Order: sequence, then structure tokens, then C-alpha cells
Amino acid sequence: MNIFTRADNKIFTQPVMEISLKRLVANYKLLEKIIDPAMPSAVVKDDAYGLGAEKVAKTLYEQADCRNFWVAHAVEGEKIVKSVPDARIFVLQGIGADSLSLFQKYKFVPVIISPEMWHFWKKHQIEGIRPVIHVETGLNRLGFRESDLQRLSTKDCRNFSLVMSHLACADEKDHFMNEKQLNTFKNIRKKYFPDLPASLSASDGAFLGKDFCCDMVRLGAAMYGINTAPYRPNQMQNIITLKAPVLQVADLPKGDFVGYSATYRAGTNRKIAIISIGYGDGLPRSLSNVGKAFFKSSSRWCEARIIGRVSMDNIICDVTDVKGVEVGDFAHFVFDEYTLDDVARDAGTISYELLSRLGKNPRFIKSFIA
Amino acid sequence: MNIFTRADNKIFTQPVMEISLKRLVANYKLLEKIIDPAMPSAVVKDDAYGLGAEKVAKTLYEQADCRNFWVAHAVEGEKIVKSVPDARIFVLQGIGADSLSLFQKYKFVPVIISPEMWHFWKKHQIEGIRPVIHVETGLNRLGFRESDLQRLSTKDCRNFSLVMSHLACADEKDHFMNEKQLNTFKNIRKKYFPDLPASLSASDGAFLGKDFCCDMVRLGAAMYGINTAPYRPNQMQNIITLKAPVLQVADLPKGDFVGYSATYRAGTNRKIAIISIGYGDGLPRSLSNVGKAFFKSSSRWCEARIIGRVSMDNIICDVTDVKGVEVGDFAHFVFDEYTLDDVARDAGTISYELLSRLGKNPRFIKSFIA
Repeated sequence: MNIFTRADNKIFTQPVMEISLKRLVANYKLLEKIIDPAMPSAVVKDDAYGLGAEKVAKTLYEQADCRNFWVAHAVEGEKIVKSVPDARIFVLQGIGADSLSLFQKYKFVPVIISPEMWHFWKKHQIEGIRPVIHVETGLNRLGFRESDLQRLSTKDCRNFSLVMSHLACADEKDHFMNEKQLNTFKNIRKKYFPDLPASLSASDGAFLGKDFCCDMVRLGAAMYGINTAPYRPNQMQNIITLKAPVLQVADLPKGDFVGYSATYRAGTNRKIAIISIGYGDGLPRSLSNVGKAFFKSSSRWCEARIIGRVSMDNIICDVTDVKGVEVGDFAHFVFDEYTLDDVARDAGTISYELLSRLGKNPRFIKSFIA
Repeated sequence: MNIFTRADNKIFTQPVMEISLKRLVANYKLLEKIIDPAMPSAVVKDDAYGLGAEKVAKTLYEQADCRNFWVAHAVEGEKIVKSVPDARIFVLQGIGADSLSLFQKYKFVPVIISPEMWHFWKKHQIEGIRPVIHVETGLNRLGFRESDLQRLSTKDCRNFSLVMSHLACADEKDHFMNEKQLNTFKNIRKKYFPDLPASLSASDGAFLGKDFCCDMVRLGAAMYGINTAPYRPNQMQNIITLKAPVLQVADLPKGDFVGYSATYRAGTNRKIAIISIGYGDGLPRSLSNVGKAFFKSSSRWCEARIIGRVSMDNIICDVTDVKGVEVGDFAHFVFDEYTLDDVARDAGTISYELLSRLGKNPRFIKSFIA
């Protein structure tokens, strides 16, 4: 191979993320069946975990008749409001002085998470909106504690449209916290909100049985293909392909070091590929000397280890045993056979955090597949 | 304190990042002195490490006369080109089929990193542009190896405007790689590019002495306040304040668990604050049970440990020993007394990765201080 005569049309520089909207909808519809008769709703906070909230919300609205969406912040609601015209948009972090005007403008439904916020709401309430109340059942995060609830009047309690809580350990089927939180939630409903519809579970709770589904389930991670029930094989389809082009292929002589701080040294002569993706693109630096890239060769996937440190824009892979890797080939990082869950395990984190990071760099070419 | 009568104007939900442009300029100017007589240039890739490339580039252009900017991808160049009208914009990942049109439109200067890319450039070269050549000197990442250089004609070599390389271990003053790379670089210059200006160092190399500065230094991390010479106290000023509002203050009874997977259990009765920031905002999940938030109380900083897992939108802090924490107070995560370098250490990573993550979520309120 003469390096000066090939690859003319095969020089690429940008990483690519492909997102299957078809599979997103399929996941949502499967979850809808699993939680039936509870109402499904879609969690599109954090820019739909980085995938693009506008596109995701619009697709679920149009192709899956989703009419209930959850965001964390009002500014996230603003991003999707035009794509889901008559849907309800719930704001999980609630309402404050820094977001009041957006609630007034768009009629978002705030989740009231504390007595202080309830007080704020009462002063600024918006006509036609009945907020959600978040009650604490064991996660010890946001929500009204029992002592807070006791200070609400009966009239106060009737002003909400939904009572919600959140599970701490729902990805472990037999964790004692699940039953404990369910019972606490049931008791609170009975005592304070006997007539209100309720939502206890997110994606992981959906798999714990009908009891946990209550009236509405907040579908997020599972819809995006993450296995939120890791005690059994994933029922969801992967919806993401992440790949990046090989910028260069080179020999790595025995004894040479690779990358920042020289954390890898070649014990024998190796062949390396330098690939155009790094932690700036959301590929965790903790994949240094641990992570993997995959190349398709004669319809088989071949594995190449990341060697040296992941840097901001590049990684280096050992392709000694991968036949025929050339400049312009695409190395795959997330795909059907090696999913977000796999990469997250390699990186020492969870797929939620990984996904949230990956989608955020606008220098990605993001491609939505209908 | 009656929780129903206070905090009316003190309910906030969004995290805030303040960026001091004044200190950015001061850092740049100090670096300019340190590297004198070498020419300074600004690395604004990865959206200026997440801070906002447009604003950063414009400020350096207007207030520090910077006329040379480095981005990783042509799409990043597009974002700043209008803010720096007559500056040179170098593209580190080089040119390819996916970026050619941007180079043609905006006259960016590609960094040619391989023989294949050189071949591509020769077919598509753009009038008036003389590219940079990246030569490999020991990092074993991008760049022409000696065997690649031998295939360039003398005429080829004269077509470049600058020869560059990149150091592997410049943050360790006495690392043997520094001298080794410098010598390799000198030899390559002498042999192939005797008449070209040269750039070897980024921020970390700037502190290794004049020899390493050559004709141009690529200033990035240090300009953003990171200590790139960690073997001595930081000469740069911190330019970032990261803070987020307390959404709720609550009692945590002895024996209770906190957060996902119940990784924290209270050994005694504690007081906790739930704060509106999480890994969705770029605060690494590896700060779970390790990281710190700081509260200002009677003009002193008080430390509060993050307990339980960092979740996507929230963290929980133990504020038992912090006096007077209230809903609406701001917890600080990065500030002058606890910098990016400190947080990165806690998170088990480097400040480059931390900074790159923090700036990316648009639900931050980003505030530039002139």
C-alpha cells in the first residue's frame, strides 16, 4: 500500500453519534405495555440525557402519543415546549425566583419539593396550574418529610394534581429499601392525599411489579436503552451508535511510551491507530489504558484496547491484532454488541452518567435515524 | 424559624457559573511575559474547555491582541470566526472530507497530521493557506513520524507555515521525556524545516524554559487558571466560580440511608442540604461520598461533605456542622480558595477533564464578569 495514493475520499475528522428514534419509540411502547395500566411519561431532562430533548420529545409526542414530559429545570422545558404543544411538562427541581417567568409564560407544572417552595408557590401561583408534590420516602433527597406534611392544611393537600416520590435502590430487585419505600409511600398517600393520582417509579421501578407503577411511571433511562433491571438481560434495544474516525495509523516501536505522563510502554513492536475522540467529546478519561474500540473486519467485530491516557480530542488504540485498519475507518465505541452499560462498566461508572456526557459536545455529528 | 414565613425571595433552582474575563486576560498577559519573546496563541478548542469559545476568543482578541487561535475541529472554528475577524485559526485535528467546505469558506489553517492528510490537502488545497505540519516527537499520538517525513519532497516541506509538536510529560519538570522530545524536535526542524517557525509547547511547556517555547506557545489550560506546573504553587489566577442553590434543608435521622443504592448511612442524627447540581451539570459522579461543598458563614468558608451518590440533578451534603444553612443559600464548589485542581483531585481526575465537563450543560446560568 502506497500511503500517498489511497484514502483520498476517506479522510474524516469528526466523531459521529447515531440515534435510532425508531428504537426509542419501540422501547417506549414496550415499557408502556410492561407498566399497563399505569400511564407512561417521558423523562427528557438533561437534554434527554444528552441525546437532544427537542428531537426526543417531538418523536415521542408524534409517534407514541406521549403527553406527559419531565424536565429538571424550566429552561429545559422551554426547549421542548413548541414540539409538544398540548402536553404537560413537569419540572422536577421545582419553581423559584430564577424560573418563575418561564412557568408563567409556558404553564409548566412545578414539582413542589419543600415547604419553602410551597410558600413561594402560594405567593406566585399561576392560574390553571395544580402543582405536583414530591414526598420523601427513603432516598433522603428532595421532598416533603412527614413533619413537613403535617404542616399542610387539608385544603393545601387538595391543591396538588399528583403526588410523587422516587426510589433509591430500584435497580436491585430484592433490595429491602424497595418494599420499605413502597409502604411509606402508600401510607403517606392514604393519610394526606387519598384522592390524588400517584407516581413512585422511574424506569427501574417499572420492572418491580404493578404495585410500584401506581398511576404514572416516569420513563427515562430504559427508554434510552439502558438496562435498569441489571439482574436480568436487557429487554430494551440499544438506540445509540458512537463512532469516530481513525486519523492515523502508525508503528509503535518496542520500548516507546504512549500519551500523557507516559502511562503505557510498548513491550513489543505494536501497531497503533490514533482516533478522533476524547474526553472533550464525553469519552471518560477513566477509560485510559482500559477502554476498548471495535473495528468491523470481514463482518466480524475486532477489539482494540485504548492505550495510554485518553486526551481531550484523541485516543490511541492498539490495533496490532486488527487486520487492515486504515486511515478513515471508523472505530466504534457504543453499538448493539457493546452497549452504554458495557462502556460504563469499563469506565467505572454508570451508563446514565456516560450517556449524559456523550451527547453534550456540539462538535459531534449527531445523526437521528427515523 | 417558621419555615412558612421566610425565604420568599430566596428560592432558586439553577446552578451558576461565573467566569472572570478580567482574570482570563490577566493570565494570558502573564503567560505572554513568561514565554517572551515567543508569540502567544490561545487554545479555544472544546468550546474553550467548556467556558464558551466565542466569548473567550473575542475577549482575548479585543483585550489582549491575540491573533492566533487553536481549535480541534473546523466546526469549532466556525463558532469563533466572526469574533476574531483577521486572526489565524489553526485546526488541530486537521482537514477531511467532513470539514473541507468550512476550510474553503473561512480560510482556516489545517494542521496536517499524517501523510494521508497531506495527500488530501494537496488535492484540495486552498489558495493563500499554508498549513501547519505536526511532527511526532514521543507522545506517539498525532503527527508525521521520521519515516513519513522522509517521503516529503523539499518542495513539500517548504509549503508549510509552521512546524509543531506536542509534549507528553511537560507538567513534570524533570521528566526525561521533556529533554528527549525537545532534542528530537530540534533535529527534525534542522533536517526538514530549517526555515520554518516552530511551536512545541502548550501551557505546561511554557514553564519549562525558553528552549521549549520556540516561536509560538499554545496557551490553554494555564490561561483558564489550571496549574500546569504542579511542582510549584500556581502562578495563574482562578477564573471560575461554580455554585448551586440549596433546594432543601432536612434532618437525617440516625440509621437512615442517603441516595441511590443507599451508599451512605447516618451513624448519628445529621442535618443535610439538598443542592441543585449533579453529574448532568458536569459534577463528576466520582465525587460521591468524597466531594465537598462550601458555605460562607460570617465571612468564613465552611466545608460540607457530599454524602451518598451524586445523582443527575442533585447532590446531598452533610451540613450538621455548618451554621445557619438555609434554603436559597448557594453552595460553592469551585472558587478561589478551592480551585478546579482541588475538585479534580477529589474526583480522581485532572482539572482539564473537569473543566471540559462543567461548562457543557446549557441549564447552567453562565455569567461572564468583565
